[in-house]
Amino acid sequence: MKNATITFLLILFAMTVSMAQIRPREAGVHFGILPTGSLNAITDVPGVKAGHFTKIQGSNIRTGVTAILPHGGNIFQQKVPGAVYVGNGFGKLAGTTQVMELGNIETPIILTNTLSVAAGIEGVVKYSLAQTGNETIQSVNAVVGETNDGYLNDIRGMHISSDEVIKAIQSAATGPVDEGNVGAGTGTVCFGWKGGIGTSSRKLPESLGGYTVGVLVQTNFGGNLQIGGVPVGEKLGKNPFKDALEKSDGSCMIVIATDAPVLDRNLERMAKRAMMGLAKTGGIASNGSGDYVIAFSTAENLRIPYVKPNLELEKAEFLQNDDMTSLFLAVIEATEEAIINSLFAAETMEGKEGRVVEKLPTDQVLEWIKNKN
Amino acid sequence: MKNATITFLLILFAMTVSMAQIRPREAGVHFGILPTGSLNAITDVPGVKAGHFTKIQGSNIRTGVTAILPHGGNIFQQKVPGAVYVGNGFGKLAGTTQVMELGNIETPIILTNTLSVAAGIEGVVKYSLAQTGNETIQSVNAVVGETNDGYLNDIRGMHISSDEVIKAIQSAATGPVDEGNVGAGTGTVCFGWKGGIGTSSRKLPESLGGYTVGVLVQTNFGGNLQIGGVPVGEKLGKNPFKDALEKSDGSCMIVIATDAPVLDRNLERMAKRAMMGLAKTGGIASNGSGDYVIAFSTAENLRIPYVKPNLELEKAEFLQNDDMTSLFLAVIEATEEAIINSLFAAETMEGKEGRVVEKLPTDQVLEWIKNKN
Amino acid sequence: MKNATITFLLILFAMTVSMAQIRPREAGVHFGILPTGSLNAITDVPGVKAGHFTKIQGSNIRTGVTAILPHGGNIFQQKVPGAVYVGNGFGKLAGTTQVMELGNIETPIILTNTLSVAAGIEGVVKYSLAQTGNETIQSVNAVVGETNDGYLNDIRGMHISSDEVIKAIQSAATGPVDEGNVGAGTGTVCFGWKGGIGTSSRKLPESLGGYTVGVLVQTNFGGNLQIGGVPVGEKLGKNPFKDALEKSDGSCMIVIATDAPVLDRNLERMAKRAMMGLAKTGGIASNGSGDYVIAFSTAENLRIPYVKPNLELEKAEFLQNDDMTSLFLAVIEATEEAIINSLFAAETMEGKEGRVVEKLPTDQVLEWIKNKN
Amino acid sequence: MKNATITFLLILFAMTVSMAQIRPREAGVHFGILPTGSLNAITDVPGVKAGHFTKIQGSNIRTGVTAILPHGGNIFQQKVPGAVYVGNGFGKLAGTTQVMELGNIETPIILTNTLSVAAGIEGVVKYSLAQTGNETIQSVNAVVGETNDGYLNDIRGMHISSDEVIKAIQSAATGPVDEGNVGAGTGTVCFGWKGGIGTSSRKLPESLGGYTVGVLVQTNFGGNLQIGGVPVGEKLGKNPFKDALEKSDGSCMIVIATDAPVLDRNLERMAKRAMMGLAKTGGIASNGSGDYVIAFSTAENLRIPYVKPNLELEKAEFLQNDDMTSLFLAVIEATEEAIINSLFAAETMEGKEGRVVEKLPTDQVLEWIKNKN
Repeated sequence: MKNATITFLLILFAMTVSMAQIRPREAGVHFGILPTGSLNAITDVPGVKAGHFTKIQGSNIRTGVTAILPHGGNIFQQKVPGAVYVGNGFGKLAGTTQVMELGNIETPIILTNTLSVAAGIEGVVKYSLAQTGNETIQSVNAVVGETNDGYLNDIRGMHISSDEVIKAIQSAATGPVDEGNVGAGTGTVCFGWKGGIGTSSRKLPESLGGYTVGVLVQTNFGGNLQIGGVPVGEKLGKNPFKDALEKSDGSCMIVIATDAPVLDRNLERMAKRAMMGLAKTGGIASNGSGDYVIAFSTAENLRIPYVKPNLELEKAEFLQNDDMTSLFLAVIEATEEAIINSLFAAETMEGKEGRVVEKLPTDQVLEWIKNKN
Repeated sequence: MKNATITFLLILFAMTVSMAQIRPREAGVHFGILPTGSLNAITDVPGVKAGHFTKIQGSNIRTGVTAILPHGGNIFQQKVPGAVYVGNGFGKLAGTTQVMELGNIETPIILTNTLSVAAGIEGVVKYSLAQTGNETIQSVNAVVGETNDGYLNDIRGMHISSDEVIKAIQSAATGPVDEGNVGAGTGTVCFGWKGGIGTSSRKLPESLGGYTVGVLVQTNFGGNLQIGGVPVGEKLGKNPFKDALEKSDGSCMIVIATDAPVLDRNLERMAKRAMMGLAKTGGIASNGSGDYVIAFSTAENLRIPYVKPNLELEKAEFLQNDDMTSLFLAVIEATEEAIINSLFAAETMEGKEGRVVEKLPTDQVLEWIKNKN
Repeated sequence: MKNATITFLLILFAMTVSMAQIRPREAGVHFGILPTGSLNAITDVPGVKAGHFTKIQGSNIRTGVTAILPHGGNIFQQKVPGAVYVGNGFGKLAGTTQVMELGNIETPIILTNTLSVAAGIEGVVKYSLAQTGNETIQSVNAVVGETNDGYLNDIRGMHISSDEVIKAIQSAATGPVDEGNVGAGTGTVCFGWKGGIGTSSRKLPESLGGYTVGVLVQTNFGGNLQIGGVPVGEKLGKNPFKDALEKSDGSCMIVIATDAPVLDRNLERMAKRAMMGLAKTGGIASNGSGDYVIAFSTAENLRIPYVKPNLELEKAEFLQNDDMTSLFLAVIEATEEAIINSLFAAETMEGKEGRVVEKLPTDQVLEWIKNKN
Repeated sequence: MKNATITFLLILFAMTVSMAQIRPREAGVHFGILPTGSLNAITDVPGVKAGHFTKIQGSNIRTGVTAILPHGGNIFQQKVPGAVYVGNGFGKLAGTTQVMELGNIETPIILTNTLSVAAGIEGVVKYSLAQTGNETIQSVNAVVGETNDGYLNDIRGMHISSDEVIKAIQSAATGPVDEGNVGAGTGTVCFGWKGGIGTSSRKLPESLGGYTVGVLVQTNFGGNLQIGGVPVGEKLGKNPFKDALEKSDGSCMIVIATDAPVLDRNLERMAKRAMMGLAKTGGIASNGSGDYVIAFSTAENLRIPYVKPNLELEKAEFLQNDDMTSLFLAVIEATEEAIINSLFAAETMEGKEGRVVEKLPTDQVLEWIKNKN
């Protein structure tokens, strides 16, 4: 066979392996008590789209962009209620203060690497200015988060362009979401193993409102990994003070979508609970970690139009404080599962300066969990 | 005449003077561009009640309680959207975190002296537990603010009882509000002159919504007094570094009421602007100042019932971000005027250890302002 | 035997059982990777004192007070760096805003029941005013937290007096700390089982600084209990949506002490991590939960004197951001363990209206954990 | 004369006029009671540098960049204590959350237009990566603020490049600072008149510590202009509800430098006071305003080195809460004066679509102020 053919087959094989990778839930790992949505993904929330741009080039470029769109329309013209919670602020999330002040999100949410936040903002701004209906807008609050993939990626090379950010936005779709070494998770490291993108969801029973909560994470942090009640980190000899890898600047970006009609204050409360889900995986929000949670509601009657008659009141129907608890639990469970999903989906990767980050030995982990039960 | 008669007549005379005391606006002082409500008081907001309990006893007790009720019903059962902004947190405002978390206020708002916050909370709790309809409630978030009247008042004596707090609540009424040396303002000092309670309001023109904003302040802080564009503090030789009085721990409590349908996030934004009104009087939020702003909306469709059917959505109509600016301006103007009103209404007082705090020489001030124009 | 003798022996027996109650760590349950201090208690931090006042009277009074003193001296005169983090603000913690603004704590920290916060403040104020050296102070920022013990306790009776608060302060001592149904934990409920007071500590290895972190909790919250990797709540049929008990207004107060020289900003970051420890027990910070964390450093060179020469600079040596991670981990681990300790120490209690809250079936739980490993 | 010569002379004349423009203080306008530094500029704080890149091209490009450098060394390697306060968060200030979390600033501070924040970040990142000593850094927290100059500038054209940002940084110098239509102030509008860059400073008397506070502002906001006690906005017929210009999205960026040894928490408190200075000019922080304050200390013993021995304590000497009040006053006064300075320095400008924004009629204003005194 020619080399090209061999390469092609190898890629095909790699893809097959990747696609065959079962998710931990399918292997019997429990994450709480609430049922998932049909895809167990952020896209279980109707209308939400996710897309990746993955950039693997040469031996040193291992990075990318992930875009989450709250809905399929013009987000600037039809803003969604939104909130940001800062778990640990050693990070560069753009757009935070305006989301907090106004209680809404007006752009796709972008995740990328630390030194490409500028490209992320530029991409979002250009995308927004160019949309039909936005011909005269002069202000765009781009929400762009990041984690630092500099262990495997030549991050100083700033290899993401604003065009590639726009590609991620344009590729966003409803339906299943790729996990692992894709998009903004291409080069990330988590608990000393290969991290990446993960997603999960919860669907509340009708007696609790029937709402869906979806979570997507970009995992790049450290701590003491725990899965299904098993202290995996300790058993595998990786803990925060044994492993040099984990001392690198980490971070975890968490995006929460829900179709529950929740206004900004309660969205912030939901966002806060995501850090509790992260805690259950063994994350410790180390000093160098930039842990941020972005939450939004897709409820149509809560959309905030850019243009409206002067003094027109917003007529809204929304959940009250007393009914939030089940949504909090949904966030905690889905965040924990999304993080573990990212570890199961990610594959061993070689990157910058020949560094290799191994895949979590998932067979071993599953065996431990099985034996425990 | 007998001494008793003389004393009586002197008191009568003093009262007459006090009642005759014109407010600065009536004397031609300008405070911004928006018109006031009919009373130029917080009670211009329909339904809002204010009441004072004034305690002047012997030579050393100069203190009191002021109560503001968002509406005349059972506030615990029909909570109002509310917010707190901390201008400078050297103070003991009780109830802050729950108001911020839940976005509502469920009790009368109490102002008193620093060491009587416990009495304030106890009074509010007892009042709430005893109300018809509250027979089974087990949690009450009392909102109780304070400033330190210890220069004129024997504050260490803790002379306010929970019963007196309840008296203030029960005396609360719609209609005109007493200003100056009353209630929580009985013993306070402001800019080196006698401070006290002040109030003011703004009524937006119909083209801006026609809403009313009312402000009530307890003034006990220092800085560089300015009135109507005149640097009164400098002219009178009182400034933050010349006058020992002003080095004492001060504070300013500010309560904002509005009938505009505004949810908690935008109420917090309104609250934040009150500090800008305070700034215009020359206040500097010194290190020792406890400057807090509490804001609530009386809009009936925004009431939060204590008991509601599970999962029932709140159906609300409320102002959006874009329409807030005129309310911000109303807050700034009414806060400035309420503070100056407190200074004009307060009278010279002798208190603890024979200390005397003089009334602001309002005639002189008015003359300066008149000559300026 | 006479009745009195029988009663005496029964009490003795009860005490023996109570004292014999082994703590989960002694039974082999793991909580992370860091070693504990010698007592595995908040009092492992040198100088820190804890005391309880327990009030069990008749069939309806089941409440109390717990006091934590950062050091044995006059705290008002020698304040300690401090911080507060609000995990979920459905609570009445007094003193929050001043701690946040000034970065220090100037009183004992009091925990009690929701409707006795006023008594707590009054007790702290009276205690502080009466201390030698405080003869002229006029402002006291009492830090008083609470949880709602109204399921077992006649909370509306407001059975705690300020004198009893002072008793708790005066009883505070170094050395072992009683856990379970004592002090502020007397009547609390946690995960549907009897909660109470718990404590734990971590001692960092010398290579990480050798500092101690101590945690004390008052547990009164719900969620999905997990211990040592076992989903205890699910196995025992208690989860947030099955059990009416847990719908009651809960809360968790968490107090963190450390001898590490940490200033207020990093103390707040430590405080934030306590919620991650709570998350690992299965807590979900439900809507009705008042979850607050108070943190302070006992480092002597960081004390803030009440009286100091004008403009004198504070000369301090303190840990920097980069060295905080191991303290974060210590907080997470000690918080998780302190909560579980409270459950193991608490005994079945009958209280108001004949209600009974059972002790967690610890033998069963330990067996599950044992079989898992 | 040839046209080119005429143009040259006209430019020379314009420059002369510009340089001849007296500042309001020189014309006798009072701003408080504290003396200024020698330049009455942010650069009165030793070591602080400021630089502008002004971009005026064709009829539609009226924008630029202003850079403030806390010191002349490698800021990333020697970070300064820093803080951010959000006056009103309708803006895009990058870097906020990391400054808040870590309490330091590690880059030049950049001001530019709303849609050029990405260029600002990219410029700062490239500048930082390229600095000697930074060869291996992988994370840069660029602090980039903006206001919206889209009334006069073709802001959608995104005419600022990262190279131009670097030019602004490289041009930064100690000494006098240009004000008015320069750098980030080139195209801004303030109170309906031409805004721009302004600066001012205060030097505390030795009895208050002798410290210097410098402020630089980019003015682009609305309200009810007041200068020297004169209601200029009302007299000139410009107020928030009369003038369409002022309805445009505004903003005010405020940068505070001090050589006082102040840690991050007290820097945040200083930052908060800047909004009180803005209030005194008549600013109202309208809904659409992005009002941000960035503060840092240049005190050498408070520098935070990027590389330090593990666990090494920071040995620092810093001002305590009790000594902050005079610095608060300095911030208020210098902010008010810097804003008015920007208005006096700015000249009438014609820009996008032939729009003209007039210079404030300063002669008329000075006459009013003169007559008042």
